[in-house]
Amino acid sequence: MIDLRSDTVTKPSPAMREAMARAEVGDDIYGEDPTVNRLQDVGAALVGKRAALFVPSGTLGNQLCVRAQAEPGREVIVEGQGHIIRYEQGAAAALAGVQLHWITGRHGLMTAEQVEAAIRPTDPYSIQTALICIENTHNAGGGTIYPLATIQAIRAVASAHGLPMHLDGARLFNAVVASGVSAADYARHFETVTFCLSKGLGAPAGSLIATDDLALLERLRRFRRMYGGAMRQSGILAAAGLYALEHHVQRLAEDHAHAKRLAARLEQIPGVSINPAVVETNILFFEVHSPRLSAHAFVAALRQEGVLLNAVSPRSCRAVTHLDVSAQAIEQAADAIARVLA
Amino acid sequence: MIDLRSDTVTKPSPAMREAMARAEVGDDIYGEDPTVNRLQDVGAALVGKRAALFVPSGTLGNQLCVRAQAEPGREVIVEGQGHIIRYEQGAAAALAGVQLHWITGRHGLMTAEQVEAAIRPTDPYSIQTALICIENTHNAGGGTIYPLATIQAIRAVASAHGLPMHLDGARLFNAVVASGVSAADYARHFETVTFCLSKGLGAPAGSLIATDDLALLERLRRFRRMYGGAMRQSGILAAAGLYALEHHVQRLAEDHAHAKRLAARLEQIPGVSINPAVVETNILFFEVHSPRLSAHAFVAALRQEGVLLNAVSPRSCRAVTHLDVSAQAIEQAADAIARVLA
Amino acid sequence: MIDLRSDTVTKPSPAMREAMARAEVGDDIYGEDPTVNRLQDVGAALVGKRAALFVPSGTLGNQLCVRAQAEPGREVIVEGQGHIIRYEQGAAAALAGVQLHWITGRHGLMTAEQVEAAIRPTDPYSIQTALICIENTHNAGGGTIYPLATIQAIRAVASAHGLPMHLDGARLFNAVVASGVSAADYARHFETVTFCLSKGLGAPAGSLIATDDLALLERLRRFRRMYGGAMRQSGILAAAGLYALEHHVQRLAEDHAHAKRLAARLEQIPGVSINPAVVETNILFFEVHSPRLSAHAFVAALRQEGVLLNAVSPRSCRAVTHLDVSAQAIEQAADAIARVLA
Amino acid sequence: MIDLRSDTVTKPSPAMREAMARAEVGDDIYGEDPTVNRLQDVGAALVGKRAALFVPSGTLGNQLCVRAQAEPGREVIVEGQGHIIRYEQGAAAALAGVQLHWITGRHGLMTAEQVEAAIRPTDPYSIQTALICIENTHNAGGGTIYPLATIQAIRAVASAHGLPMHLDGARLFNAVVASGVSAADYARHFETVTFCLSKGLGAPAGSLIATDDLALLERLRRFRRMYGGAMRQSGILAAAGLYALEHHVQRLAEDHAHAKRLAARLEQIPGVSINPAVVETNILFFEVHSPRLSAHAFVAALRQEGVLLNAVSPRSCRAVTHLDVSAQAIEQAADAIARVLA
Repeated sequence: MIDLRSDTVTKPSPAMREAMARAEVGDDIYGEDPTVNRLQDVGAALVGKRAALFVPSGTLGNQLCVRAQAEPGREVIVEGQGHIIRYEQGAAAALAGVQLHWITGRHGLMTAEQVEAAIRPTDPYSIQTALICIENTHNAGGGTIYPLATIQAIRAVASAHGLPMHLDGARLFNAVVASGVSAADYARHFETVTFCLSKGLGAPAGSLIATDDLALLERLRRFRRMYGGAMRQSGILAAAGLYALEHHVQRLAEDHAHAKRLAARLEQIPGVSINPAVVETNILFFEVHSPRLSAHAFVAALRQEGVLLNAVSPRSCRAVTHLDVSAQAIEQAADAIARVLA
Repeated sequence: MIDLRSDTVTKPSPAMREAMARAEVGDDIYGEDPTVNRLQDVGAALVGKRAALFVPSGTLGNQLCVRAQAEPGREVIVEGQGHIIRYEQGAAAALAGVQLHWITGRHGLMTAEQVEAAIRPTDPYSIQTALICIENTHNAGGGTIYPLATIQAIRAVASAHGLPMHLDGARLFNAVVASGVSAADYARHFETVTFCLSKGLGAPAGSLIATDDLALLERLRRFRRMYGGAMRQSGILAAAGLYALEHHVQRLAEDHAHAKRLAARLEQIPGVSINPAVVETNILFFEVHSPRLSAHAFVAALRQEGVLLNAVSPRSCRAVTHLDVSAQAIEQAADAIARVLA
Repeated sequence: MIDLRSDTVTKPSPAMREAMARAEVGDDIYGEDPTVNRLQDVGAALVGKRAALFVPSGTLGNQLCVRAQAEPGREVIVEGQGHIIRYEQGAAAALAGVQLHWITGRHGLMTAEQVEAAIRPTDPYSIQTALICIENTHNAGGGTIYPLATIQAIRAVASAHGLPMHLDGARLFNAVVASGVSAADYARHFETVTFCLSKGLGAPAGSLIATDDLALLERLRRFRRMYGGAMRQSGILAAAGLYALEHHVQRLAEDHAHAKRLAARLEQIPGVSINPAVVETNILFFEVHSPRLSAHAFVAALRQEGVLLNAVSPRSCRAVTHLDVSAQAIEQAADAIARVLA
Repeated sequence: MIDLRSDTVTKPSPAMREAMARAEVGDDIYGEDPTVNRLQDVGAALVGKRAALFVPSGTLGNQLCVRAQAEPGREVIVEGQGHIIRYEQGAAAALAGVQLHWITGRHGLMTAEQVEAAIRPTDPYSIQTALICIENTHNAGGGTIYPLATIQAIRAVASAHGLPMHLDGARLFNAVVASGVSAADYARHFETVTFCLSKGLGAPAGSLIATDDLALLERLRRFRRMYGGAMRQSGILAAAGLYALEHHVQRLAEDHAHAKRLAARLEQIPGVSINPAVVETNILFFEVHSPRLSAHAFVAALRQEGVLLNAVSPRSCRAVTHLDVSAQAIEQAADAIARVLA
């Protein structure tokens, strides 16, 4: 099977498994897991922050940062197709009690003007703004990359209003590798940054939250217990994360090349509509125009051909390239799509 | 002072005060206040529902209906400028734990197509939709009225997806009087309806929640205690509400005529930009274009002339007509606006 | 009917109704209701605090103080039979997200030693303590009064741990009148104090929150909107509150005398078990020992005799004296109880 | 170092590491991790339930079960020293919005009479009861085991009131091995059961929730995403859990024997106060009576001797035996304690 449903499906390589098997561990709730501690140090350094905290998932990373920086009843500005809105089961409201303020971005990217307009007046009648979240790359926007200048402009707005910023960097290193902007250059504009060790980096699980604010980190650590995300000998997973940071960052360029190649192939296939120009990283959205096949039927037919994709609406599909998809598999997938739509 | 800031500023008339002074009362937490009970019966009948519950505010009415019909972590569809979003201090998230799904309406009015597109797929990854809220008339949209056909179309969408609907009818009777559609004809499309006895109807405080579902009403009653909105001899306030329902509904037509007259006057004033065609009830938004005056400075200057308005953005203002604003006061307000902008 | 179910059942007197009918009012959400403002000033002064906020109910008063002083996930120390635990529908957890730490008091009164033992260690594993709440008089404890020395000792513990204290003074003036300790002398030990204008003071509804902390008061005001407890021309109710503070405080001594008299009568009735020594204010608990009658059956039989009480367990009942119960009614009630148990 | 602080400090053995290294994995959020699926099947069968769900921690297991079975504002009955109360950072209130009803058990064990008395009347004024939680073995009670008859009696009370029950079985298998009662015989009395694969069973992380109710399981799965506890290739951890269930259950008897031996040794040491009769499984509490040493100072001095314990109050300590503590280490620890107190 060629699995293009998501970059979350990657399986640990033998070398990564070996790293896990050898990992020195301890009780992380006592702060005594040396591998977790090393991962936290390495991860923090990589994004230019003082400290980091290991969490089981990117959702938990986002949620703890929202909770720790926005009081219940306050508003958090996010793009309307963001992961926090669509795929975290309403946790921002249900668990942190915050209201999300939706902005309709272009390919998922908000502008500073939009953010400025969304900040509430500080009168006693209006809800009050607490935090601005940016997702980079933006999953539902098509793996799009925030231009650094846009982030800088939004940061200026945030600072003028005394608001903190959170970076949902689930796929931050895709942005880094594709743009040439360093992780630290992105991260310096944010009070908190999360990034995933799974997804493109290929670890089985785990994300890091990084920050310069050590008091905030202690709050995040306490909230991690509250949410049930504190584990014991987490060094097993952390070892995979360390391996991923060492070996799987630069190779994201291959995934991006594969995505571009797939987009180019798809553009040639009758019945597919895609704009290759917006494929910046490892995510592609395309539409299927077939008199016979809805997107869901197309996906089902494609599965018979050994290729897995997700249908995301009656007409559109998402494909994601990753560590376990080779250049050859991309050609095979494109061939299969052409066959199904023929 | 001519106070056009809001229709919430009305003061009880001597006759309404007399009704309050004479009100028979009891302990409403024991269900023994006869005036509250009568108000609840009269109010329910007026909107064609089986039963109603008295609450201190429209905010509480909305919030209890949201809470009782949407589990924490579920999504509630609302228009992006709605009262629930802007002026309830994030209670839907902070207290009920629900996520609001923002739709950008035209003059505050959503279409059935927009609502349909906002309903989430029932997969295990996406947040799930629980409730659709409609605000009629729509305050921030300019006192706009939902066409009955639009409500019917949204109802059809809701029913197809098994979703309940809530009507934020804070100013429902403005819609009724202006459109000629009966309150019951609007309300029949909703599981729960709230409407305010203050605002246009002129009572000092209080709103009603009406529903056909008696088990739901008992849940709402328990939640009213939880939120601290249960009072004892509420019959004092309920008497004002009964008076308002008897005497102040039909006269809303005057407020609408005053608003239209004010809009017509404003259209003639250099430096004011207004579209009188969208003034359907008692709320007007207009823009001030002055090289000297921002909206806030304009409002401050107008106060010196004895007229009160609210500035709602750097360029725009809101005026609201009501029981305590006469036809003559409208002319005086228009004169004052012209003077300030001259 | 002689209604001894609760002091919440009192009906406004003609003079109190007259005060409401004459009340000068304004829009309290704009802070413009002169009667509300006067009540807030008078009430704050009475308990020796800088400022006060009017709320529709004692439940809301308690809940806003808990919310504003305890972050979600923190612990609030309360006595296990407290109003906050039993009769506020779980709002402390459901709305404020705080955990209540139960202490089993003697007649509802906690000791400083118990409070000290309940404060959590400040390690990263234990839940953290945020606030201590005292209910004075204590309803379920039998209207018991906190000795000032106990409050001082608990305050010393709180201060040693840097914890704020809240006084649920729903019946604070019963404690004041019975003990001779001034309201200010009680209140000076607390960051926030709530007291009810209904209950013993006889207003139809409404409570005040008083504090010296003006920034906290603004937070409480915003939370009041969030909970739906902000009203418009609340001066109608505030006028009753002002009347109650002027005319109904000292007379609470009558209610206490009536309660003591009723306890003395009950002690003489075969089948009733009561300890008159613990009847300190206007609340009595007693047990019914009848081969024929459970407490519920006893209460039902008594209703036939024109006397209302509450059964609170299979064997025990609660009686509460108040403004609308005369000395003669007390004798009649005792006679009726004797008849029913004969 | 001999680490008796907690049974959470165990490190995976070479064989367990080998099992992790070899684990077949998939994306568990898509339900495609074969090792997770097998662990869930094996774990469910072991406690006699139809299905199970893997979660990163026992805290999350408890919290999801509380959330899914108790509406916000309802009460959950627990023993006052329970893990849910002390060590979950207030999550039951902060995240699930439920109020915990504290019962003071004997060595952590509640009786059916206590539970019955704690269930609220179903009137409209009282908070309502939703769920009963039992912790078996009870950590803070001293690793005590619930007699099956007590559980049966509590179940009868629960059923009479239509209430579900949750078993916090973080150390369920300690109870099973020590009592001879099967896990299924305990579990049949509960709608939901959690048990930990870490702690005594020695896996690095992870717990299972088991239930017969498949619709409830789907709700738990959705809540797992909301809380951020859903991971991808969790099979790595699940493999350790499977290994633990196969190899580490029966050997808990050794930990129990070690604990009894340590208790017997401690009883002989001057300055130690302990009741060996209450040491039923792998947890010991004892008091230190030294003119020189508080419990904290004692623990610090003992660390110098190579033995780790936790002080839990100014006078008392907790020791926990586990997989990584040998019979010889127990003798060494007792010797060190004697030296420090000499």
